Amino acid sequence: MEWYKDTLEVRTRGKGLYPFTDAVNARIREWGVSEGMGFLFLQHTSASLVISESYDPTARIDLEQFMDRLAPENQTWHRHTLEGGDDSPSHMRAMLTDTSLAIPIDNNQLSLGAWQGIYLFEHRARGHRRRILLRCLSVT
Amino acid sequence: MEWYKDTLEVRTRGKGLYPFTDAVNARIREWGVSEGMGFLFLQHTSASLVISESYDPTARIDLEQFMDRLAPENQTWHRHTLEGGDDSPSHMRAMLTDTSLAIPIDNNQLSLGAWQGIYLFEHRARGHRRRILLRCLSVT
Amino acid sequence: MEWYKDTLEVRTRGKGLYPFTDAVNARIREWGVSEGMGFLFLQHTSASLVISESYDPTARIDLEQFMDRLAPENQTWHRHTLEGGDDSPSHMRAMLTDTSLAIPIDNNQLSLGAWQGIYLFEHRARGHRRRILLRCLSVT
Repeated sequence: MEWYKDTLEVRTRGKGLYPFTDAVNARIREWGVSEGMGFLFLQHTSASLVISESYDPTARIDLEQFMDRLAPENQTWHRHTLEGGDDSPSHMRAMLTDTSLAIPIDNNQLSLGAWQGIYLFEHRARGHRRRILLRCLSVT
Repeated sequence: MEWYKDTLEVRTRGKGLYPFTDAVNARIREWGVSEGMGFLFLQHTSASLVISESYDPTARIDLEQFMDRLAPENQTWHRHTLEGGDDSPSHMRAMLTDTSLAIPIDNNQLSLGAWQGIYLFEHRARGHRRRILLRCLSVT
Repeated sequence: MEWYKDTLEVRTRGKGLYPFTDAVNARIREWGVSEGMGFLFLQHTSASLVISESYDPTARIDLEQFMDRLAPENQTWHRHTLEGGDDSPSHMRAMLTDTSLAIPIDNNQLSLGAWQGIYLFEHRARGHRRRILLRCLSVT
């Protein structure tokens, strides 16, 4: 068994879902990992990782709207407001989604379903550079 | 260290939580994996994985009702409606729960707590065949 | 590659977020695991695991309040009420957060972001002893 690692960076332009499946699969191909597990870990608390529908863009718009409604900004009961009204809701939204993902690798790529894509969910209004740790266990 | 893999199928009859802990443990026993990690990955975006109370069925009824209330169907602001009023909420509900799980294996079975069970959460009204990738790292 | 395992116990005094990052890093140092993956698995269904902001305590207070509002206790439609009005909401809150986490290890510690900490989220009103399985794959 072999171990491979890298850090991916996703640059965001404010709130929303940013696809990065291709960047992960490119590394897996470069490393020649034909079978094993891929691990993704996001080093931030105001963004998160999501696996969701990759085909119809309106699905993503609905997910973004849903999060705005589920954990709305600028509520009077928020105390953690020093960095702005979008900061505390960004931690709430991150808590409800994912910071770490484990995805099987087969045939030199992530074994995603036909309609699955991996997204960085930016929860802050302002753009950020987000760091995602990629680790691969090759089992062949 | 050894690597084992299989694909499980769970057939659903519409929305709800479907237990499948036994199917995973049966594979682990067949493979003779006494110690290591089990990885579950669901290849769908309108269903999800949940670990929850396995003892009292009313706990599951409450979880199903809760999701119906948290991400209700047929909202006027939904745009992703081509496949029906339950499609976009199914992605929301999947996003709030899990697509991948990593569970320790000891003594030839998943090291779940006394009251924990693994469930496939079907979010669509119609029944589906859901594919779950099972991967096991045996460490002995 | 080597495999290390232990069980951590977090004692809670009722609802809230309890940090335990240091206990995990202490084990990793004792084992001398310089690089690999750390896996955390909580053996309970009325508590959960969360990675979130570790710097400003008001961020945690907002997350706790948010969960109280998102999955409120003592609702008339709850059926799973035998163990009290906080029991069914505790399963809902656990379902929305995490039971398992996979975190890369580098330089003899978890590769968390600068502001990330790991928390046990107790969802029951009464204090509990919570068991977290820690597994480490050392790859060097």
